[in-house]
Amino acid sequence: MFNSSSKIIDGIQHSKNLLHRVKTLASVSEDFNKRKPCIAVILVGENSASEIYVKNKIKTANNIGIKSIKISYPSSVLENDLLSQIKKLNDQNEVDGILVQLPLPNHISEEKIVLSIDPSKDVDGFHPINFGNLFLGNYTMLPCTPLGCLHLLKKELGSLSGLNAVIVGRSNIVGKPMQSLLLKENCTTIITHSKTINLSEFTLKADILISAIGKPKFIKKNHIKPGSVVIDVGINRIKLDNKNKIVGDVDFEDVIEKVKSITPVPGGVGPMTIACLMYNTVKASYLRNNNKFKEVIFDE
Amino acid sequence: MFNSSSKIIDGIQHSKNLLHRVKTLASVSEDFNKRKPCIAVILVGENSASEIYVKNKIKTANNIGIKSIKISYPSSVLENDLLSQIKKLNDQNEVDGILVQLPLPNHISEEKIVLSIDPSKDVDGFHPINFGNLFLGNYTMLPCTPLGCLHLLKKELGSLSGLNAVIVGRSNIVGKPMQSLLLKENCTTIITHSKTINLSEFTLKADILISAIGKPKFIKKNHIKPGSVVIDVGINRIKLDNKNKIVGDVDFEDVIEKVKSITPVPGGVGPMTIACLMYNTVKASYLRNNNKFKEVIFDE
Repeated sequence: MFNSSSKIIDGIQHSKNLLHRVKTLASVSEDFNKRKPCIAVILVGENSASEIYVKNKIKTANNIGIKSIKISYPSSVLENDLLSQIKKLNDQNEVDGILVQLPLPNHISEEKIVLSIDPSKDVDGFHPINFGNLFLGNYTMLPCTPLGCLHLLKKELGSLSGLNAVIVGRSNIVGKPMQSLLLKENCTTIITHSKTINLSEFTLKADILISAIGKPKFIKKNHIKPGSVVIDVGINRIKLDNKNKIVGDVDFEDVIEKVKSITPVPGGVGPMTIACLMYNTVKASYLRNNNKFKEVIFDE
Repeated sequence: MFNSSSKIIDGIQHSKNLLHRVKTLASVSEDFNKRKPCIAVILVGENSASEIYVKNKIKTANNIGIKSIKISYPSSVLENDLLSQIKKLNDQNEVDGILVQLPLPNHISEEKIVLSIDPSKDVDGFHPINFGNLFLGNYTMLPCTPLGCLHLLKKELGSLSGLNAVIVGRSNIVGKPMQSLLLKENCTTIITHSKTINLSEFTLKADILISAIGKPKFIKKNHIKPGSVVIDVGINRIKLDNKNKIVGDVDFEDVIEKVKSITPVPGGVGPMTIACLMYNTVKASYLRNNNKFKEVIFDE
């Protein structure tokens, strides 16, 4: 049987390596500033997925020397109370990062909440001014999932200059920022989406293929340029043989022989996202204290 | 001889048509708000090109019922004095738009100046938060040149959905915002640049080709997909037969038989930029007074 293991980009191992470096950075920050870097996480309502995400974030933070503050609200919380809480956290000097776990209940405007976070503490990178700076190439806080994908790509390929990068999906939190990051790495970038005619015409040019569309096993070998690197951002829950299973946007078994390497789902991009959140928190603690910060996440 | 006139996208006529609509909008705004829309233009130093640009902007504004305030400084002006002036204009309710003519002298940070402008008065669309909103698809103030290009494309082609748009050049004020606009119009978008390998491989797929690289007559017919629409943003000064001449990035004579239509240089994109600046000023006067504004610039 074909041995695919050498082609798998191990996101779990890469995230461990990155977290190890973040831990060192956190400890240096603590020495500088006489306090640990600190993230405040706000959880609204009883969404079980959100609860698990928040729990993992806090656990990871505590493991690597980042202080965490968890603030929980019932789903009935008023928008104004949430805004006041965020204002308080903005004003607290010892809080470096603020994360509001999304989604929020319908009566609360996510846009207003994101806008209310001090951009220098916006460790999710979702504030419009942080997106604007990303767009302009002045990196401040970068959204975690695309940042994690870029980290994997640079570890896998070294310099990306001159490569053709094709992104499938144009969401604000993955597809678009991914393109901005790859453009700055000197890739020729193509964004495709649901209105693209003849998708494979583009994906067949991809030295780097990134899929973030949320369609289980949508990308097949007929989409793949031989020897490409594939990053699968999809996390799709399907039923298989009456069991629940998580699969990516890419039909892993179908493409594996053709690719140079590929991220699995689970165990690929997912673990990187949380590592990048920790990275952003420590980065914020450096920048807010005017300590020089070296972007080790871009190391090849 | 081949008759090319039917293929020319007449930017002068399109800008006149748009300015005519802006004039009507300005007059409605004046009725609503008991004052004309108003733009303040700041000119620093004695750059003769800048002086001509500013003069044209003010003349155009006055012609269509927009009040203008011109503020001139010597090139020795201190950054802080400029910042105080902008703060004053930010605070004046009767000023709808603030434009600082670029470039500025080296001792003044353009970034700091742009950041100091109230984003709701940023009629150039250069503030990071306006770029961020463009990126996110929440249109506020949009940069004038790409906006003008989009206007021409929609007038020429109607719906752009599903078309392949290839942008040559990745500047912050043309290439990147152009891509964001075309992505929202449901184009498949490709950004190419100096590090792109085999440029024509991409441009040959372009139903819409936009060039903004500043290289005279760089784009030849071997780059062109038959029947495409070409928008030439380049304004390059060259010597031809010992005379000064302005030419675009596209070799007009070389490509004309192959294209569906093309903007000439001069007389294509150039006149649209100033019309879009007037559009933005009137739009700002509507939005700042909570008057409902219909984005007629996107009409097909």
